[in-house]
Amino acid sequence: MVTSIPVIRRLCRYYRHLEVLIEQGIERIASRDFAVMLGQTASQIRQDLNYYGHFGQQGYGYHTVDLHRALGDILAVPQKFPTILIGAGNLGAALVNHIDFVHNGFELIGVFDCAPQLVGTCIQRHTVADMAGIRAFCLQHAPQAAILCVPDDEAEQVADLLVRLGVQAFWNFTHRDLRGLYCEDIVVENVHLNDSLMTLCHLLGNRMPPALQTG
Amino acid sequence: MVTSIPVIRRLCRYYRHLEVLIEQGIERIASRDFAVMLGQTASQIRQDLNYYGHFGQQGYGYHTVDLHRALGDILAVPQKFPTILIGAGNLGAALVNHIDFVHNGFELIGVFDCAPQLVGTCIQRHTVADMAGIRAFCLQHAPQAAILCVPDDEAEQVADLLVRLGVQAFWNFTHRDLRGLYCEDIVVENVHLNDSLMTLCHLLGNRMPPALQTG
Repeated sequence: MVTSIPVIRRLCRYYRHLEVLIEQGIERIASRDFAVMLGQTASQIRQDLNYYGHFGQQGYGYHTVDLHRALGDILAVPQKFPTILIGAGNLGAALVNHIDFVHNGFELIGVFDCAPQLVGTCIQRHTVADMAGIRAFCLQHAPQAAILCVPDDEAEQVADLLVRLGVQAFWNFTHRDLRGLYCEDIVVENVHLNDSLMTLCHLLGNRMPPALQTG
Repeated sequence: MVTSIPVIRRLCRYYRHLEVLIEQGIERIASRDFAVMLGQTASQIRQDLNYYGHFGQQGYGYHTVDLHRALGDILAVPQKFPTILIGAGNLGAALVNHIDFVHNGFELIGVFDCAPQLVGTCIQRHTVADMAGIRAFCLQHAPQAAILCVPDDEAEQVADLLVRLGVQAFWNFTHRDLRGLYCEDIVVENVHLNDSLMTLCHLLGNRMPPALQTG
């Protein structure tokens, strides 16, 4: 089933906001209230969800736990795809420490780097392994996804190698666009932090002056 | 001048790809070749740029250095907005180490945390300061932007405080959506890493099987 990227991103937001509600002990939420929480219209939410089945009831709203579980299944979260991280520098190490992979559908099974000063060090329960052993590791453990935190000019070379070793998905933190380099069987999510920061820069440099505000 | 977010993101991509060309010593690029590099149409690029002025020449293409400089001005990169980072844990520290702020339009002037074990430690040339001193710091140095790497349940409280202290822009790494909480004079760029990873999970779980591929 092929869904557009904007719809997938909205489903992720619904999933995240349902978690907040569940944490707060809220069992059900009116579709109107959920829409207000999300800053969207109730009909947009209904439209996104109707594609996958029938959720929510007239006069009852959404059952938070049920919808959360259903969205998790739609997003493939229970699959826990085996995943490796390449590049255990500042950003890579921070991701290992900061991200709850299982919570987002992945299981981190290996961390690799080629810097001698990093190989053998520990990040959480992961010992950083030498990139020299990546081929043997992939043949044995068949990771399906890879997180790329390598220098920009190594991005394509590393990705090419991993594709040959069976990796099918990349969470790409380099500044190179990997999407479009491979056939459609390889999926890529680029996280271009510099682009994001520069977007904020433009918004700040061109924000509406207070005198013109409507709100 | 108000530009849509998708256009701003494309301008950031053009800027980033022009940097690669300049690094490679390429002085000019045909609009067709630039479009291929970006995976877009030449007319889309022309349309995005025409909004800001006349760039590129028939039969010559784009002068990489000139267009890069012009895009930098459009994106407000030379402004170097004074910026603080709140939350010097794993992710916050990684951002200080990893991001070239000046390159993206910001100057990092302070790093804050409330954890006693972090206050006083150094990240790059920044000594982590105690959040208790944030008010005095803002009154003296007037930061315009803040990077939020605080725990999710502190996001709104910290943002509210900073807005009262004059901060106008947030680069938000918490899982809470800050956009929409404030008037239009406060700009927010949310970086929801979990949503991004979950998007990849859905793409991987629902990718087109090889037998159905067209490319």
